[in-house]
Parts: sequence; C-alpha cells; structure tokens
Amino acid sequence: MEKPLDALNKAKNKRVIVELKNKKEFSGVLKAFDIHLNTVLEEAEEREEGKVVRKLGQILIRGDTILFISPA
Amino acid sequence: MEKPLDALNKAKNKRVIVELKNKKEFSGVLKAFDIHLNTVLEEAEEREEGKVVRKLGQILIRGDTILFISPA
Amino acid sequence: MEKPLDALNKAKNKRVIVELKNKKEFSGVLKAFDIHLNTVLEEAEEREEGKVVRKLGQILIRGDTILFISPA
Amino acid sequence: MEKPLDALNKAKNKRVIVELKNKKEFSGVLKAFDIHLNTVLEEAEEREEGKVVRKLGQILIRGDTILFISPA
Amino acid sequence: MEKPLDALNKAKNKRVIVELKNKKEFSGVLKAFDIHLNTVLEEAEEREEGKVVRKLGQILIRGDTILFISPA
Amino acid sequence: MEKPLDALNKAKNKRVIVELKNKKEFSGVLKAFDIHLNTVLEEAEEREEGKVVRKLGQILIRGDTILFISPA
Amino acid sequence: MEKPLDALNKAKNKRVIVELKNKKEFSGVLKAFDIHLNTVLEEAEEREEGKVVRKLGQILIRGDTILFISPA
Repeated sequence: MEKPLDALNKAKNKRVIVELKNKKEFSGVLKAFDIHLNTVLEEAEEREEGKVVRKLGQILIRGDTILFISPA
Repeated sequence: MEKPLDALNKAKNKRVIVELKNKKEFSGVLKAFDIHLNTVLEEAEEREEGKVVRKLGQILIRGDTILFISPA
Repeated sequence: MEKPLDALNKAKNKRVIVELKNKKEFSGVLKAFDIHLNTVLEEAEEREEGKVVRKLGQILIRGDTILFISPA
Repeated sequence: MEKPLDALNKAKNKRVIVELKNKKEFSGVLKAFDIHLNTVLEEAEEREEGKVVRKLGQILIRGDTILFISPA
Repeated sequence: MEKPLDALNKAKNKRVIVELKNKKEFSGVLKAFDIHLNTVLEEAEEREEGKVVRKLGQILIRGDTILFISPA
Repeated sequence: MEKPLDALNKAKNKRVIVELKNKKEFSGVLKAFDIHLNTVLEEAEEREEGKVVRKLGQILIRGDTILFISPA
Repeated sequence: MEKPLDALNKAKNKRVIVELKNKKEFSGVLKAFDIHLNTVLEEAEEREEGKVVRKLGQILIRGDTILFISPA
C-alpha cells in the first residue's frame, strides 16, 4: 500500500464502518470517496452503541466530520 | 459512481435530508451545490426529532456546517 | 440555478435572514457577498427568538460564522 | 457596492464595532484590514455588555476570531 | 532527520500508537500515511486508559483528528 | 498604514501583549512573525488576570491560537 | 531573526517544551519540524502540572494541536 486512500479503493463496494468525530457511527457499502474523505455509502445505517437507530439508504458524508473508516 | 458529488447530481430537483453538525436537520428540494457542499434547498423545512419546526422557503446552507446529505 | 451563490445574486437588495452557527440571527438587506459567504447587510437587525434585540445599520458578517442565508 | 470588503474601505479611519465569536466586543478606529479580516484598530476599547472594560490603544485582531464588523 | 514525516517513514510496518484529539488511542501496524497525517493501521486496537476496548483490523484515520503518533 | 501586519512591523523589538483564544495572555518582546501570525516573543511572561504566572524566555506561539496582539 | 521558524532552527537538537491547545505539555529534544509546526521530539515526556506522567521516546506531534514551543 502506498497511500492511505489505497485502503479505501480496496474497500469499494464492500461494507465499511464510518465513525464520526461526534461519536455517531454509520455502516454501509462504500460507493465513492474523494481526497477530503467525502464518502458515499449505500444501504447506510446509523448506529449507537452497536444498535441500528436509523436506516438511511444512500448518504453522502462530509469528509471533515469523519474520525476513521474501517472495513466492517 | 465515480465521485461523491455524483450522488448529489442524481438527487438534483429531488427532496433530500440535510443533517448538520449541530444536530439541526433540513428537508428540501435540492437545487444547487458546489465542491464545499454549499447547498441550496427550496421548499425547505427545519426539523427537530422528526417534526417540522420552521418553514423557510429557499435556503443556502454553508457547506462546512453539514454532516450528511441523503435522498429523502 | 447552476451554483449556490446564484441564489444570493437573486436576493441582492432584498431582505434576507442570516442564521449563524452560534444561533444568532440577523435580518437585513443583502448588499454584497463573496465566495466565503462574507456578507454585507444594511438596515441590519439582530434577533433572538424572533424579537429584535439590536439595530446595527450596516454590518459585514464573516462568512465562516454563517449557518444559512434565506430570503426573508 | 461590489464586494464585502468595500464596506470596510468606506469605514477606514472611522470608528467601528468588532464583535468576536467569543462574545467579546471591541470599539476602535479602523486603520487597516486584509482579506482574512485581520484588522487593526486604534483607540481600541474592549467592552462587555456595553461597558468599557479595558483600553488597549492599538490592536491587531486575528480575522478568524471575528463575527462581524459594523460602523459605530 | 530532515522532515517530520521522515519519522513515520522509519516507523512503516512497525507498531505505533496514535493518540487523537478526543483522547482516544489506537495501536496498530503503520501501513500508509500522507502529508495530512491521514494514516492506515492494520491489526488496529482502540484503547482507553491502557486497555483494549475494540479490535478493528484495518482502519484509515483522518489526519486532522490526530494529536501525536509514536512508535510503540 | 496599508496592511494589518504593518502594525507588527512597527512593534518589532518592542514589548507587546498577545491574548489567546483560550484567554491566556503573554507579554514579551516581539522578535518575529509571519502571515499566519506565528509569533516569536523573548523575555516572555504568561499572565492570568494581570499577574505573571510563568516566565518562559523565548516562545514561538502558533498564529491560529491568537486573538489579538497589542503594543504593551 | 527574520522568520518565526528561525527560532526553531536554533533550538534543533536541544530540549524544548511544547504546550498543546488541550493543556497537555511535552518536553523533548527537537529533531524536526515543518511549516505547519508538525514537530518530532525524541526522549519525549508528557507532563501535567510539572510532573512527568508518561515517557514516550520519539513522537510526531501534529502542528495544529500546538499552542507554543519554547526552549526548555
């Protein structure tokens, strides 16, 4: 792996966990991202303490709100 | 989909939900956006816990306040 | 409408509401703005919960403090 | 008026109020500013709830701390 | 050593500690980083007060959330 | 005076007060600064409510922490 | 001294104190830095109220977390 975003390229079309700075957590299928980490998920779910609190379908998350992204 | 903003291009003229970092939520018809996620909604409504608290007509939301945008 | 700032061009010389990230709200006649949303209002009023708390004449609001701008 | 900073050009050498994001307020004679809103005031006074709490002479205020600038 | 990121080049493929601004701490094997300090760890563990609270496998941490990185 | 930083050029080698966003205040002799307001003071003192709480010799203050700089 | 970072060049390979915005303080030997103030210390110690709370060896501190750097 050369660059951090290579990790996201390998995770494309797979389910990832996106944890935000405000402690929210989203799970979804990674469809797109850019250098700011603006990220599109499909089949997205918002979770709190491991439980699904909202189903959102497709979402575009603003990159500067993200703490980390991890393959599910 | 290649880039995150492609998701917004497909949502143009459709109703979207915009959730802000400060927990406010707007619903409205997506009319315009740019790379900062500055976003114009029409028929905009401000919501708290699912209820409409204010009708705003057209609004321009500053992109750096946005947490996510999702088709309604 | 192509770009978000087109919405402000149409609102020029008309009364707008500017809501800030810190929950302050200004009402005034939109006279100028730039790509950072630095915004000049005339006949500006500061409001809290719908009531006028201060009359300010002309103000230049720093763009990065703004949450949204909406035609009044 | 074409650009927001034109408003400051007209206010040069006149007394202005500078309100900061942290709720501090300065009054002083506007001597210089730049595109970041870095601002030099002379005969500057720090105010809280309308009362002068400190006389500061000349101050250079960092632009990113500013909420708005208004002719006094 | 000439530049700060040289320290990360030497730590590549070794275990590092990443402490975040929000007081979270991750331990993992450093696989990639960029000039923003966006950082990929493998075999990543989230820790609180020295104890492992979550095993995460691979994570991409957004650089602007990082306080420091240190070889374990 | 044309630009805000001209005020700092005139204050070079003189004692200035640097007030930070976090309410700390430093007094010291201004030796260097740049466009970000990164600032070097010598004979620096940290003050709280007018009293010296720490003597620091030379310090480099990161510009983005600064609220204002004023000749002492 | 011409530029603020000249002060750091003179402090290279000497012990410095790095105080962070979150009130943490590190002491260590300055090995590298860049224009963002990303800073590498060796023999680094984390301190609270003057006492060593953790020995860290080498650390890379993200520049935007730094309040000031001062020769020890």
